[in-house]
Amino acid sequence: MPEGLPPATAEDGLTQRRRRLRPALIINTGDGKGKTTAAMGLALRAWHQGWSTAVYQFIKSGKWTTGEQLALAALDAEHRRTGAGGPIEWHATGSGRRWVRKPDEEPDQSEAARDAWAEVKERLAGERHQLYVLDEFTYPLAWGWLDLADVVETLRDRPGIQHVVITGRGAPAELVEIATTATSMTKVKHPFDTGQKGQAGIEW
Amino acid sequence: MPEGLPPATAEDGLTQRRRRLRPALIINTGDGKGKTTAAMGLALRAWHQGWSTAVYQFIKSGKWTTGEQLALAALDAEHRRTGAGGPIEWHATGSGRRWVRKPDEEPDQSEAARDAWAEVKERLAGERHQLYVLDEFTYPLAWGWLDLADVVETLRDRPGIQHVVITGRGAPAELVEIATTATSMTKVKHPFDTGQKGQAGIEW
Repeated sequence: MPEGLPPATAEDGLTQRRRRLRPALIINTGDGKGKTTAAMGLALRAWHQGWSTAVYQFIKSGKWTTGEQLALAALDAEHRRTGAGGPIEWHATGSGRRWVRKPDEEPDQSEAARDAWAEVKERLAGERHQLYVLDEFTYPLAWGWLDLADVVETLRDRPGIQHVVITGRGAPAELVEIATTATSMTKVKHPFDTGQKGQAGIEW
Repeated sequence: MPEGLPPATAEDGLTQRRRRLRPALIINTGDGKGKTTAAMGLALRAWHQGWSTAVYQFIKSGKWTTGEQLALAALDAEHRRTGAGGPIEWHATGSGRRWVRKPDEEPDQSEAARDAWAEVKERLAGERHQLYVLDEFTYPLAWGWLDLADVVETLRDRPGIQHVVITGRGAPAELVEIATTATSMTKVKHPFDTGQKGQAGIEW
């Protein structure tokens, strides 16, 4: 359903314009499909608004470059060529220059995640982008690679109007607490249940 | 989590290649956010595969052109200009030439939905596209504008390898039954609950 007017009126004293510009912190969690693709759909909307978007992939797939990455790169190129839309940067943890310490070795994934988060923090402080997609961000949190309290404080206190989308299963309650939107993608029926293999164009 | 190999092996006698190419019928339902944006993320993957994609919007918003529509139009233009990716068509019910019977009047929405579905049926029979996004398709079904048995039979028996994504709340059980993937986007926290208004770049 086209989602229009809010059913309730807030009593927070904000003006309509200020409320409309409230920075969103969106969490796509749950065991079902659609967490990352929904984040990519938001990147399309951001592109159309002319926003600067940065995608940080916290779990490196290693096996393939995803379709969404290349499609968003085409939109970024279109922006640079014609000025339409906004810029989109894609950072794959482990592949960025800051994250590979020894070029001949696989980078340490936990170190890579910490470096990526340090970069996101720096950019948030500098109000570098309008939209940040922190893809698969819940896993380094769950595995203790990142400090949850630091993450919550940084996101809660980020300056200006910077929207953040976080994807991944098992989002911690502390993160949901400070979110403006949290959705659980719940599996009703999953193709892998019936032995279906992942297929190009659908899963990546 | 990168979703890799299926946990179970199917005993359906299909070869791996045949199973990998099994046409997907994906349903994004539930009261939460992300149903349409996840479908748009799949359109990005389809574009990268060079597939032909058709988006049918079954509920006309009327008020604005969405960011995803214009971003996907840019990718379609890129395809036509350079040959990269695939073509993407966007059909907004009520705005298409076949759907407006009297140019000076608002088209009847139920008639527009029936015409749109007739066009989708025709294209499925002709194997015209690799991906169909039937956005907000559950509503004309729920309102009785379309015949559920006809829809189920058409989708179940569609020829070749044609993927279909359906979005909208309250997907009927008969549709979930024939789906390869069904996900319920479940609201954990919704911005409208706290009086937040929809904002550009996030909701459209």
